[in-house]
Amino acid sequence: MNKKKIINDPVYGFITIPSELIFDIVSHPYFQRLRHIKQLGLTDYVYPAAQHTRFQHALGAMHLMGKALDTLKFKGIDISDEEYEASQLAILLHDIGHGPFSHTLEYSLLPGIRHESLSYLMMDQLNKEFNGALALTLKIFRNSYKRKFFHQLVSSQLDIDRLDYLNRDCFFTGVQEGSVGVDRILSMLTVHRDQLVVDEKGIYNIENFLNARRLMYWQVYLHKTTVSAERMLVNLIRRAQVLVRGGETVPASHALSIFLTQELTLADFKTPQILHAYGQLDDNDIWGAIKCWLHHDDRILALLSQMITERKLFRIKLGAEPIKKIHIEKIREAIMKKYGTLRADASYLFSHGTVSNEAYAEGHHINILMRSGEVLDIAQASELPNIKALSKIVKKNYLCWPKNVSL
Amino acid sequence: MNKKKIINDPVYGFITIPSELIFDIVSHPYFQRLRHIKQLGLTDYVYPAAQHTRFQHALGAMHLMGKALDTLKFKGIDISDEEYEASQLAILLHDIGHGPFSHTLEYSLLPGIRHESLSYLMMDQLNKEFNGALALTLKIFRNSYKRKFFHQLVSSQLDIDRLDYLNRDCFFTGVQEGSVGVDRILSMLTVHRDQLVVDEKGIYNIENFLNARRLMYWQVYLHKTTVSAERMLVNLIRRAQVLVRGGETVPASHALSIFLTQELTLADFKTPQILHAYGQLDDNDIWGAIKCWLHHDDRILALLSQMITERKLFRIKLGAEPIKKIHIEKIREAIMKKYGTLRADASYLFSHGTVSNEAYAEGHHINILMRSGEVLDIAQASELPNIKALSKIVKKNYLCWPKNVSL
Amino acid sequence: MNKKKIINDPVYGFITIPSELIFDIVSHPYFQRLRHIKQLGLTDYVYPAAQHTRFQHALGAMHLMGKALDTLKFKGIDISDEEYEASQLAILLHDIGHGPFSHTLEYSLLPGIRHESLSYLMMDQLNKEFNGALALTLKIFRNSYKRKFFHQLVSSQLDIDRLDYLNRDCFFTGVQEGSVGVDRILSMLTVHRDQLVVDEKGIYNIENFLNARRLMYWQVYLHKTTVSAERMLVNLIRRAQVLVRGGETVPASHALSIFLTQELTLADFKTPQILHAYGQLDDNDIWGAIKCWLHHDDRILALLSQMITERKLFRIKLGAEPIKKIHIEKIREAIMKKYGTLRADASYLFSHGTVSNEAYAEGHHINILMRSGEVLDIAQASELPNIKALSKIVKKNYLCWPKNVSL
Amino acid sequence: MNKKKIINDPVYGFITIPSELIFDIVSHPYFQRLRHIKQLGLTDYVYPAAQHTRFQHALGAMHLMGKALDTLKFKGIDISDEEYEASQLAILLHDIGHGPFSHTLEYSLLPGIRHESLSYLMMDQLNKEFNGALALTLKIFRNSYKRKFFHQLVSSQLDIDRLDYLNRDCFFTGVQEGSVGVDRILSMLTVHRDQLVVDEKGIYNIENFLNARRLMYWQVYLHKTTVSAERMLVNLIRRAQVLVRGGETVPASHALSIFLTQELTLADFKTPQILHAYGQLDDNDIWGAIKCWLHHDDRILALLSQMITERKLFRIKLGAEPIKKIHIEKIREAIMKKYGTLRADASYLFSHGTVSNEAYAEGHHINILMRSGEVLDIAQASELPNIKALSKIVKKNYLCWPKNVSL
Repeated sequence: MNKKKIINDPVYGFITIPSELIFDIVSHPYFQRLRHIKQLGLTDYVYPAAQHTRFQHALGAMHLMGKALDTLKFKGIDISDEEYEASQLAILLHDIGHGPFSHTLEYSLLPGIRHESLSYLMMDQLNKEFNGALALTLKIFRNSYKRKFFHQLVSSQLDIDRLDYLNRDCFFTGVQEGSVGVDRILSMLTVHRDQLVVDEKGIYNIENFLNARRLMYWQVYLHKTTVSAERMLVNLIRRAQVLVRGGETVPASHALSIFLTQELTLADFKTPQILHAYGQLDDNDIWGAIKCWLHHDDRILALLSQMITERKLFRIKLGAEPIKKIHIEKIREAIMKKYGTLRADASYLFSHGTVSNEAYAEGHHINILMRSGEVLDIAQASELPNIKALSKIVKKNYLCWPKNVSL
Repeated sequence: MNKKKIINDPVYGFITIPSELIFDIVSHPYFQRLRHIKQLGLTDYVYPAAQHTRFQHALGAMHLMGKALDTLKFKGIDISDEEYEASQLAILLHDIGHGPFSHTLEYSLLPGIRHESLSYLMMDQLNKEFNGALALTLKIFRNSYKRKFFHQLVSSQLDIDRLDYLNRDCFFTGVQEGSVGVDRILSMLTVHRDQLVVDEKGIYNIENFLNARRLMYWQVYLHKTTVSAERMLVNLIRRAQVLVRGGETVPASHALSIFLTQELTLADFKTPQILHAYGQLDDNDIWGAIKCWLHHDDRILALLSQMITERKLFRIKLGAEPIKKIHIEKIREAIMKKYGTLRADASYLFSHGTVSNEAYAEGHHINILMRSGEVLDIAQASELPNIKALSKIVKKNYLCWPKNVSL
Repeated sequence: MNKKKIINDPVYGFITIPSELIFDIVSHPYFQRLRHIKQLGLTDYVYPAAQHTRFQHALGAMHLMGKALDTLKFKGIDISDEEYEASQLAILLHDIGHGPFSHTLEYSLLPGIRHESLSYLMMDQLNKEFNGALALTLKIFRNSYKRKFFHQLVSSQLDIDRLDYLNRDCFFTGVQEGSVGVDRILSMLTVHRDQLVVDEKGIYNIENFLNARRLMYWQVYLHKTTVSAERMLVNLIRRAQVLVRGGETVPASHALSIFLTQELTLADFKTPQILHAYGQLDDNDIWGAIKCWLHHDDRILALLSQMITERKLFRIKLGAEPIKKIHIEKIREAIMKKYGTLRADASYLFSHGTVSNEAYAEGHHINILMRSGEVLDIAQASELPNIKALSKIVKKNYLCWPKNVSL
Repeated sequence: MNKKKIINDPVYGFITIPSELIFDIVSHPYFQRLRHIKQLGLTDYVYPAAQHTRFQHALGAMHLMGKALDTLKFKGIDISDEEYEASQLAILLHDIGHGPFSHTLEYSLLPGIRHESLSYLMMDQLNKEFNGALALTLKIFRNSYKRKFFHQLVSSQLDIDRLDYLNRDCFFTGVQEGSVGVDRILSMLTVHRDQLVVDEKGIYNIENFLNARRLMYWQVYLHKTTVSAERMLVNLIRRAQVLVRGGETVPASHALSIFLTQELTLADFKTPQILHAYGQLDDNDIWGAIKCWLHHDDRILALLSQMITERKLFRIKLGAEPIKKIHIEKIREAIMKKYGTLRADASYLFSHGTVSNEAYAEGHHINILMRSGEVLDIAQASELPNIKALSKIVKKNYLCWPKNVSL
């Protein structure tokens, strides 16, 4: 069987599956699961074409990794075939631990467990199934390989992950101005003392990258309508968990039932059944449950299910100012009155909290290799004062509630 | 509330919601349902980015309708504001009756009912809810309006529907060479004696359009891997129906249960409950059920569910030659032996039949307005001998079966 | 004759010539001249596809003006048909006074004359030829029309001119990340008290616009190789002028000869012959002369002609630090020695001075209309500290000289 | 000096100069000359963005050659580094012998000399200058290398040359529907018994390629307005030659003068001066001369120069029917009367003849490798009857004449 496949990708044209091992990993149910997990959760409720999946992102990132490594080799960096394939695998699998709706449900289905940890567990399991073929991949992924730039390509402020997702998210949302200039940035990468650095000629491109990323936070990732939709979904799952744990019958797939019934810790994933169930859980388990709950006896579960299905979303206030306690109380009481619910139950019908760009803007450096041979952080290398402002973590506060209730 | 919205669309840039009525129709649950129905069923199993929905297609077609009408007005054709909006609504709603997975399940969930009939019923229902605001829309849709070119824009060999879907499918599959030159074709449209015609200067573009459409049949719409995946889904639904109708418990959403339990006729849709249930049925009901059936006691239901989820598809033979009876029998027996099933049950584990490009290539004309004033069919107007060959209905025969069984 | 033409444009798809008057203006020799003037001078020596002309830019800007006006009308701003056409004409003609190689030769061929003044003179001449049909166009162009936003669309910090040229330059250079999100910005424009303002929702887009513009300065407009090529061309023209004015025979077209022989002032353009000659002068007069001068007896004229033709460009040092006098002297003497020239003649074989982004970044405001109804400058409206840094005028110093001479 | 350059190309993103030798060839004046020769002559008079040059095409073709060779290597075909570079050089240089305005002036400036012969002479000269480094390149170019598929990649019915120019011409004209699906076709190429063949899976793509090519003939390459402009240019050059050869003073660059004065044969190019002069001749010599001739004493030379400059083109009749002698005579007499010219002189003010798609559609095969192992020509392999019709040579007859003269 010919395993050298070519896959159409509207973003890059064609993506080549470069080896038999990679073909087999892509065919594994764990990886195929990513076909059913949308990259941007409910963002398609704002940008209808944002239907792209973790599967596409993982393949795209693998493709870019190949281009990055080709550039480095062209510049004379020595990279072995084994390192090449292991880096491609590491980026291919870096997100394999993501659960349904990507980031949205991380904290309700799996409180306290980061998807990176699950990625590691699943990669480790794959390594066993493939008789150790992923050993170097695992080393690179957890940053225990001596040549640090491989890990930095997989995970750093300017990693291949970001380059693909910013580019891809911008493509599918149709927010053209979020374009980060992937090809140009890739061509500016180089390695200096085993660290990934950017050539001085690329400073304007890095500035542009930081700016585009910032645009994408506010215009896409933290768009207020998406925040509202996602909060509703979180409330819905929380409600289902409370009902199940209180002994009610709540239809759900086998895999979803496990995560509704129990609050699991990372240690539980050492049990093969749990990891296996997680390996079957995707967006469709959630959407399927929502469609089953439309006529559920629990009025709140049914109502939220219907609202999400029909995109009747909460109204939302999102801004820099803190939400006043008095407003929260006012909303709560209006809901209790309108829906005739108890105080505890009302809490599923509104939401408040903070959102931030944290996931996108951690504090690590982007290193620039100056013509002088010096390595500077972009903040020093750039002529723009306060370029750091482009990366800083901004928190915004939100309050969202049903449209038929007035503040 | 501002109802003049602008929606990002990677294909056309921005799509404007042109009126309050259209905004309200788009917000209706019937239309929102299209967000959850993929345009190309399981085609994303071959072209991973083909995730686009009927929702996007309907909006895109409305957008193109506006451009077509603007062109006609620019050429001096008189079009009233009412006709303008009604045409946009007619194309917006032309596919509203599509069921889950678009064409795939039409014949198993709703045998003998064409989606156009359901579109009409749903538009009629919307017309009631909106106090007759869709009266002209309905007339145009069913071709009872006197100015025939409006209907031809909605439904004919060169309608706005096709222009959007070919363009959009080509964009999202990444099959760039399927490009039909939408803008150019739109600019070549004109009206002659109330019929939609194409200016003689557009002959090469129509040839190209017919060729691109043909490319898309074979490269996308009837791709053998998609045929295989869709046949598996059809078998799965048939299996579920047999089990339900035989008294087994088969978990499913409320809406899906109705269509698994009963074999409905078009007349049944006059019952509000049935139409309402259909208005809640989308891809997620099917996918959700599949995820619930993974561990079902019926081995065949569980097996097909798992194979579809993990993309372990039937091997397929697809070609012009008829499938030999002896091969079918050989496969059937091999399956009976391999899976230890009865003859009747084995039939869910393979499939044979014909596929054709019929849905895309019916026999109607594309009229060309020659410089001489004559109107000719493209077959006469083109210098290409046998251009008709590009439109003819081709049937291919297929046989598909599990990979662990040999022919 | 049908004057409602449609023109293919890779950037926007199709551009429609919207009226007979505009068709006739486009057909006029003054406007056709723009076909022979490249938008970016010698930039194609760095970005080979940057071959686009002022003709394309002018049509593209007219197209965008139509979209901007449609948006404003959609938002309820009253715009008459006459204002609509006059605005399109104003932007169509705003650059008609540009000379060969756009900005490059402005200061050597026409010292002290701004191309805007020549645009005005040529528009005035066209107005006479078209019997006053451009009266409102002229008013809008020179900002004497009472509704100020029309002029602001033609010329301001966020005018249609910039939107087209940034978009177009980014398209043809292939510097994809310079994308300014034209459609989005256009959709954010509105009018408040007859002033052009941007909706608050567009703040991130304006930030992105300012950033993209900055990227384009450094990556394209002030690219060091382009600066070098353009300085060589300026030296060449200066040399030709000196020779002509010293009585030497220097072959050139009729039009070019006029500008080589005399140093003209704006007043001279009142003479019909001068304006007429200018209306015949384009890039081809310069390139044609260069090709004639390849074998000229004046060694410096011949050498520079050959170097430019064969792209044997000066080496260049470009940076924030001032060029030291001593370096200039060193270069001058090395050239005198290498080429055996007099001190005065050596000055044609190197160049030093400053370049800046001034032409792109003047100090005017971009006004944001806040939800509160307040109008703020982007610098106040943005959360980014020091956003002004993106617009500030930066000067860089350069020194360029032949490669066979060492510093 | 770093010779591993990356060049922006809007069509492919980035093009890498893969070796020092190729860098040096690209820097040679012969190759730099291609910067000043437009790929499509005067086509920009119809499609304003069709400004792209032979320089861009040559680099693009080299880039695609790299992709094609990578594909073949990926499929297991053995290709040495030397063969790889030689193939890239062969395609890079295949058009180096093109003269000003590409095909347009071939028959007037150099009657009876094919540009391929000049390409060979120039490559041979480069081979001498580079001490034999192009020996294998020359072998591949003239098809004397034993592994025939290398030559077929450079020159055949489905060569890299065509793939780039169709793709590039379609991109810059903005005729989007001419897209040939380059990436897909490249991925379908393979080698069978040292012959270049296309995998059976690519049949629809080849059909599409032939169709797209046909669209491009009629919509672009043989567009009637381009034919008219090019005939005018041919007449102008003929007029200049007659004047020069009759002893008149006709200003022109050194290089152009040679070709105006003498009628050269291929043998003359053995003289270094002639080859050298040709190596300096580009579009700018022609355009420069036209601008010098605007005020020439010869009324016909001046008139044609002015008409071409200002795009006041001949009216044209173009069609399948032969042009009647009587019409030609009528036009000739009307011109003689209108312009008061002699019969012989009138012939410069109109033109008649035939154009055909010959240059694009010669009779060679495109070989398809069937799953059965058989190799079939596309005409047999395709299900489309008469696919040959897409490739056949069609001749059209034209008559063009000044607009102020009536037929």
